[in-house]
Amino acid sequence: MTLTRRPRIVVVGAGFGGMAAVKALKDADADITLVDRTNHHLFQPLLYQVATAALSPADIATADRALLRRQENVTILMEEVTGAAPERCIVQLANGRELSYDYLILATGAAYSFFGHEEWRAHARVLKSLRDALAIRAEVLGAFERAEQAESPEEARRLLTFVIVGAGPTGVELAGTLAELARSTLARDFRHIDPRSTRILLCEAGPRVLAAFPESLSDYAADALRKLGVELRLGQSVTAIDATGLMIGDERIETRNVLWCAGTAARPAARWLGVEAARNGAVKVLDDCSVPGCPGIFAIGDVASHGDGSGNPLPGLAPVAKQQGRYVAGVIKARLAGRADSVPFRYRDFGTMAVIGRSRGVADFGWMRLTGFFAWLTWSLVHLMLLVDFRSRLAVYLNWTWAWFTYGRGARLLTQDGLEELEGEHRAPARGRPVDGDQDRLSPGG
Amino acid sequence: MTLTRRPRIVVVGAGFGGMAAVKALKDADADITLVDRTNHHLFQPLLYQVATAALSPADIATADRALLRRQENVTILMEEVTGAAPERCIVQLANGRELSYDYLILATGAAYSFFGHEEWRAHARVLKSLRDALAIRAEVLGAFERAEQAESPEEARRLLTFVIVGAGPTGVELAGTLAELARSTLARDFRHIDPRSTRILLCEAGPRVLAAFPESLSDYAADALRKLGVELRLGQSVTAIDATGLMIGDERIETRNVLWCAGTAARPAARWLGVEAARNGAVKVLDDCSVPGCPGIFAIGDVASHGDGSGNPLPGLAPVAKQQGRYVAGVIKARLAGRADSVPFRYRDFGTMAVIGRSRGVADFGWMRLTGFFAWLTWSLVHLMLLVDFRSRLAVYLNWTWAWFTYGRGARLLTQDGLEELEGEHRAPARGRPVDGDQDRLSPGG
Repeated sequence: MTLTRRPRIVVVGAGFGGMAAVKALKDADADITLVDRTNHHLFQPLLYQVATAALSPADIATADRALLRRQENVTILMEEVTGAAPERCIVQLANGRELSYDYLILATGAAYSFFGHEEWRAHARVLKSLRDALAIRAEVLGAFERAEQAESPEEARRLLTFVIVGAGPTGVELAGTLAELARSTLARDFRHIDPRSTRILLCEAGPRVLAAFPESLSDYAADALRKLGVELRLGQSVTAIDATGLMIGDERIETRNVLWCAGTAARPAARWLGVEAARNGAVKVLDDCSVPGCPGIFAIGDVASHGDGSGNPLPGLAPVAKQQGRYVAGVIKARLAGRADSVPFRYRDFGTMAVIGRSRGVADFGWMRLTGFFAWLTWSLVHLMLLVDFRSRLAVYLNWTWAWFTYGRGARLLTQDGLEELEGEHRAPARGRPVDGDQDRLSPGG
Repeated sequence: MTLTRRPRIVVVGAGFGGMAAVKALKDADADITLVDRTNHHLFQPLLYQVATAALSPADIATADRALLRRQENVTILMEEVTGAAPERCIVQLANGRELSYDYLILATGAAYSFFGHEEWRAHARVLKSLRDALAIRAEVLGAFERAEQAESPEEARRLLTFVIVGAGPTGVELAGTLAELARSTLARDFRHIDPRSTRILLCEAGPRVLAAFPESLSDYAADALRKLGVELRLGQSVTAIDATGLMIGDERIETRNVLWCAGTAARPAARWLGVEAARNGAVKVLDDCSVPGCPGIFAIGDVASHGDGSGNPLPGLAPVAKQQGRYVAGVIKARLAGRADSVPFRYRDFGTMAVIGRSRGVADFGWMRLTGFFAWLTWSLVHLMLLVDFRSRLAVYLNWTWAWFTYGRGARLLTQDGLEELEGEHRAPARGRPVDGDQDRLSPGG
């Protein structure tokens, strides 16, 4: 490609992939536009800690503009991309405008999939954005507040039953930290209920938790979860979710707290481009992360389906997205310099980890496997170092240290508005119920 | 009062007054119920720093249950009180239930008053709760994002015009920190606008800022604000606010960012009780903070109007509420012990302070007045020590230190949802506008 003006590179999404690509294009002689729906880069692996009141949003999110302040070749647009017209080399924005590009990097990530049961979405919460995390936090803290005021033990039990669907890392970590919230942090905070009696179920259609890990680590994690009081339902699928509970196989569980950590679906980039998608909607990309038939368009991270060389797609992990982002930046820089001979992208797997509660974990480095306290410590250190800036690192470190010694959670915040808002948008009201069917009559005080 | 059961004390509101009262009743042989609409105690004096992205909500708010975990005589109810029936000694809750009491402490605080212009409320933001602060944060950060995409310089100028109404401590502190956000933190973060050109107006009907301070300190504060680039409009009233701007005297200012820090109105406790209220709706209380005609009912803090001995009401400050809370706890404990001879409440004024930006302040201790950096430092240290727990103190201290050296703001978070939500509830949409009046036609990309 020969241009008489500075080439334009548009990057869509400021997650791990998009941000890595932009940063790796630091010295590119090009006009880069980063389009992001939010104004911040989010460290998703710790999002479950915001959902369980251990961290604040600001601890794991940093403004895109602050991260890229010194990179003069980048313009940031807080906007949503709604489509693309590859034949005209433009993307379309929600505000009605268009952006033209010479190179396009799609890093739009994935959302949760309900496997065709869209009607379940109204009764379950997912965990992808800060907003999701705050909604879960309000729901979890609100459940305890309502249980404290419950009119019957049955109602309290229903309120204090949490079901997590999907036992991948997010589901396992959420179950573990939720168990500790109930059994340690909140243990002595109520007068009418005992938070230690909280039921936490982790439901998984496959035969074991952490299916991507070696079996011995899955067994260790399952054991650690049981020790925290988490009930496992392995090899059992959710067959129905409604406003008052769900069916796990043939078992009916009464609950209004369903956290959905199961299948993912890529954002609709493949549809924008009119190209072939994998089963989860991800763009099937070539060896160099480019989109077939569109040599100037690349898809990276969760929105891309990239073979691992043995026929399986690469996993939806942050390191994959980051490595692809850096790789694609290199490909584009080579092309801008007139070189086009790129070696195929290869994912370097440095290992995967998960934690269960405040002192146990599993880590698989291929050449070494860790379990227990040392795996947890490794996880903690690695995640601290992966945080994007020093400020986040310090904030998370201090919050963790504080929580570790006190069992406290720093972000236990809930407003009346919060409760009402959640109820309004998500489920049937649980408050302000008429007593004995007569709204105006006041019942005797407690 | 002679009771055959443990006496019941109901405290409504977990602000400075209510929390002080509950804590001072630690050793009372009574059943205390604390009713709070939220689940947390909020350090309101720093709320403006949440609104300007300097602090996270969790830094200045702590769960009521965590604060009172060890106080066995307290039950906490996260509920809203909607009324009272003093003749039956009960308060009514939003969930339809009632609470009976032997002693009632009303510490429900105040909200903002629009001086009879309720129609202005739709076009201005107030700052009383965490929710308010997050809404202002989204509005402020969103204004810069939209200005970056503005189609004309006029539109950008309108988006980057902020008007703060009311030059009490909150208005002054908000104006100062907003000016520094624009001129330092964001100065280099945009490509199409220069945040340093942001207009910040502080409008005050009275003749000077910080009217409760000595005149020399007001003059210093006004000067410090001007140095930060804040335009002062003193002795001028707001006469109209609508969706696109406001009138200050005869001057029309085009803006959609109006922050209302003017008059306060007490919550409706006086109406619940059917007793005499001051002009701002506060309950006129007797010397011992009790409500006339209701010896078992006390009102403290902003919901009470208590003479200062010379005919003026005490100011709506945290120290007044805290001292009243402790005083009332003492009165109740004396009565429970059979003693009824309480000395009248007297407010001990240890001084008042306000800060302007990151290195200037004013402090009036009566016997000493401070201005400049030393006043700012005193303010910082005093506020750190007043924070309710060590965790908050550490978090705020680190955030401040970080911000002081880097000019950064740790909580610059905004989501697309946030923008849309704000627009939906508060004002006309600014995004997704049709271009040339034709919604379907796409304009050339930028």
